[in-house]
Amino acid sequence: MTHFMNSRENMVTDAIDGVIAASGGTLARLDGYPHIRVVLRAGWDRARVALVSGGGSGHEPAHAGFVGPGMLTAAVCGDIFASPSVDAVLAGILAVTGPAGCLLIVKNYTGDRLNFGLAAERARAFGLKVSMVVVDDDIALPHLPQSRGIAGTLFVHKIAGALAEEGADLEAVTAAATRVIANTHSIGMSLDTCTIPGSPKENRIAEGMAELGLGIHGEAGVEQIIYETARQAIAAVAEKLTPAMGTGAHVVLLNNLGGASVLEMSVLAAELVKSGLADQIDRMVGPAAMMTSLAMRGFSVSVLTYSAEDARLLEAPCVLPAWPGCAALLPATVLPLPDGLSPIKALPSAHAETRAFLVECCRILLAAEADLNALDAKSGDGDTGSTLAGAARALLAAMDALPLADQTQLYRAIGQELSQTMGGSSGVLLAIFFAAAGDASAAGMPMRQALLAGLERMQEIGGAKPGDRTMIDALLPALTALETGLPAAALAARKGADHTAQLTRAQAGRASYVSADQLLGHVDPGAEAVARLFEHLSQLSV
Amino acid sequence: MTHFMNSRENMVTDAIDGVIAASGGTLARLDGYPHIRVVLRAGWDRARVALVSGGGSGHEPAHAGFVGPGMLTAAVCGDIFASPSVDAVLAGILAVTGPAGCLLIVKNYTGDRLNFGLAAERARAFGLKVSMVVVDDDIALPHLPQSRGIAGTLFVHKIAGALAEEGADLEAVTAAATRVIANTHSIGMSLDTCTIPGSPKENRIAEGMAELGLGIHGEAGVEQIIYETARQAIAAVAEKLTPAMGTGAHVVLLNNLGGASVLEMSVLAAELVKSGLADQIDRMVGPAAMMTSLAMRGFSVSVLTYSAEDARLLEAPCVLPAWPGCAALLPATVLPLPDGLSPIKALPSAHAETRAFLVECCRILLAAEADLNALDAKSGDGDTGSTLAGAARALLAAMDALPLADQTQLYRAIGQELSQTMGGSSGVLLAIFFAAAGDASAAGMPMRQALLAGLERMQEIGGAKPGDRTMIDALLPALTALETGLPAAALAARKGADHTAQLTRAQAGRASYVSADQLLGHVDPGAEAVARLFEHLSQLSV
Repeated sequence: MTHFMNSRENMVTDAIDGVIAASGGTLARLDGYPHIRVVLRAGWDRARVALVSGGGSGHEPAHAGFVGPGMLTAAVCGDIFASPSVDAVLAGILAVTGPAGCLLIVKNYTGDRLNFGLAAERARAFGLKVSMVVVDDDIALPHLPQSRGIAGTLFVHKIAGALAEEGADLEAVTAAATRVIANTHSIGMSLDTCTIPGSPKENRIAEGMAELGLGIHGEAGVEQIIYETARQAIAAVAEKLTPAMGTGAHVVLLNNLGGASVLEMSVLAAELVKSGLADQIDRMVGPAAMMTSLAMRGFSVSVLTYSAEDARLLEAPCVLPAWPGCAALLPATVLPLPDGLSPIKALPSAHAETRAFLVECCRILLAAEADLNALDAKSGDGDTGSTLAGAARALLAAMDALPLADQTQLYRAIGQELSQTMGGSSGVLLAIFFAAAGDASAAGMPMRQALLAGLERMQEIGGAKPGDRTMIDALLPALTALETGLPAAALAARKGADHTAQLTRAQAGRASYVSADQLLGHVDPGAEAVARLFEHLSQLSV
Repeated sequence: MTHFMNSRENMVTDAIDGVIAASGGTLARLDGYPHIRVVLRAGWDRARVALVSGGGSGHEPAHAGFVGPGMLTAAVCGDIFASPSVDAVLAGILAVTGPAGCLLIVKNYTGDRLNFGLAAERARAFGLKVSMVVVDDDIALPHLPQSRGIAGTLFVHKIAGALAEEGADLEAVTAAATRVIANTHSIGMSLDTCTIPGSPKENRIAEGMAELGLGIHGEAGVEQIIYETARQAIAAVAEKLTPAMGTGAHVVLLNNLGGASVLEMSVLAAELVKSGLADQIDRMVGPAAMMTSLAMRGFSVSVLTYSAEDARLLEAPCVLPAWPGCAALLPATVLPLPDGLSPIKALPSAHAETRAFLVECCRILLAAEADLNALDAKSGDGDTGSTLAGAARALLAAMDALPLADQTQLYRAIGQELSQTMGGSSGVLLAIFFAAAGDASAAGMPMRQALLAGLERMQEIGGAKPGDRTMIDALLPALTALETGLPAAALAARKGADHTAQLTRAQAGRASYVSADQLLGHVDPGAEAVARLFEHLSQLSV
């Protein structure tokens, strides 16, 4: 499996360079590549308590993406899924810690505990105040005294970070972090394993199965279950979380493990607020990719029993794009559909001349059905004649209901009729043509100008131009020539239609998929229909 | 391929419910399920120009995720990769449009153009002011007059949205949108196809290949190229974009097509700012998933020639989590490594009694090497004896360099020595033990208390407790009993060590992976080492 990287060795430093480049100058790094990979706030003045976190890479945006005002001061990045060295952690601590001291926020993995722990000792030997908390929110392995640290870590980053930003002292920040850790529980589920760049993919999870309680480093889940639906997935997670949850309100954090689509994550969010946890959760962080396992197609849910103070700190503004905010869970607002979706039918009115004209147009199209179908078979799917004849039949049937005496309303009514009875793009385009003509008529334009306005709008929306081998090639010259009378319009329409037989760059509609060889010598059926309309109308008017 | 959903039919409405649930009450929807899926700002007062966008679903967070202050007013969501109906778009327009009018922002696909176009006509028939712009930023198919609309659409949402939020009129907002569209160019690349939920996966892109210029609905790319590195991928994209770019500064938008990991996207960001485009880009949006193609493992790059006004609008604050902000591209700040990474070696000093004691301890460990290895072979990998003997040898070799006359410095120096010479967790843990003992000694504690403080810290960091079958089971009772003398300590250590043979719940270190049956009856080698130390020291002191 290929990945977007230059080499496995440089992937983490390259990614850190990208994070810093995209930070707008708010982030910096220490000059310790390749082994010391520390991202820190640019311009940090050490006046407040520093928060340092980190661990193996592959969990982005954790932790470098959470370095910034109100969250972390520095992130120490190990290689993918590997703890950073003692020296790297120590460098991070020394770079950001002033008289107010430093809190290390460590996920509960042996390597991280030991390396951060020893670095803390070495920093203390320099007289620095350093405290350390270990996040162990994963409830997947209840028999182990050492639970893993997963996405619940974000609660600690945000609450301790907001507190430190306000100027709280190290004891208060450490106490808050400790309290949050005690009150946080998480579990993950995935439909597939993650693939470490440069390593072969482990196909451990069969199609149709899911792993429940898996780790964020590719560790196998506690159990494999048959995966059915998003609802069942959330129910399985909720069932595990419920016994661990205290009474009272919880914040829920919905984390994308990296490879679930945003669409899927929203489906999971919808299920979460309808799940067995619904009564116990009233705020949500996410859904978002916060603590990923590379691009694993899974999610994790974390819950935090929280105080009013925790809520205030969770909701404190944070400009970091990786932090999705914390939102109250409220009943969804469902607004009634607006009036006007059922078009107001204009009152029918009689107008003998208009009626006769329309009936004649319909008859012309009905008579041309077979010819137009045959022509369309050369360049399309052979249904232009039937489509137009169907529209003509529908219009004839609706004749008594049309506002024949009101030209503006008539255009609009024809447009509505066509949009409802003609299938496909052509129906919508003709509906747009007549609706725009109606608008122009309402604005006082006479018929020819109104139809030209309709044609212009149809071109604008449909995207076809003259020469693109469409009905426009006959209709535009016809309407232009109509200024000097119907016979001139008929001549222009015919000339335009015949010219389409020479046009091979069909750029709209189905003919655009047909090769030039097949098009050459055949008139476009839409243009032919327009030419026949004008020719017959011209003969009748003589 | 399974997805997190309940059914293909309900996936989009379920996802919209999730988006609204996670919005903290800022979003609402129209009561038009299942066919009319419109997400809109709750409490929108129609005083300003409304911005309506949308199209097929599967591109999340576009477009519902961009509904909010300073961006869209409403999003009309079609089914996955399918345009919403005319009625749905009209419902959206009618729901949000007041006297100030409405701008439709449409990506250039036939279905979207027609359905949004006809809906606009129908809205105009109600007397509403509606304008429409069509985004066609994709440069992948330069021979087509109808370029597709892809992630560059976000520039339009943000700039037009910020302008409308400020109260600009419809003409000004439409003009800005039109200008942005003319100045935006995009292209995408992917390592794999996307998979539509409920449909089989199309394996069109072979391992090691990439598609350049692909669409966001699974449309094949213009070309397949051999994929080598992130650098080469960005170079290929830059080469396509360069001819389309105007002179002057550009904003670049780096979009995750949904399935690339955050780590990979940061690598691509780093390459982008070093690429052939570097001289022409000075601001960046992303990297982030903005206009996805479900979970496609690809990215797209969009560039916008911008004015000072555009920059102001792009950088206008926006609280939407889906909008990653727009950051200036600045040279990376690289800070020097802090002093203190090379531990200051305490000055050597002589102290005969301490030296004799330390040498004796080392000899005891050296003598126990084979026995401890044999014991460890029962529960681990058989190297406890060698590890401790190695440490003892190193300590003997370093004896002349140790600050033997200064107890505080001596603890710290031993800790440093062990962290450098002992491999693995045990070296780090003993280093923490001695470092913490040094801290305690510096604070004035006598030896026994200092060692107990070290032990406490070691337990805290290492996570092992008494009864977990570690050296702690001998060391803690020994140090406790030491109050009444070395013989009592030796007895306590032996008792504690022997008791480990009954302990089967090893919960730290390698023995935690060994079954209870294999552990029963065998003393823990670390505890045995401690017992032997105390026993021999006690005999010597008699």
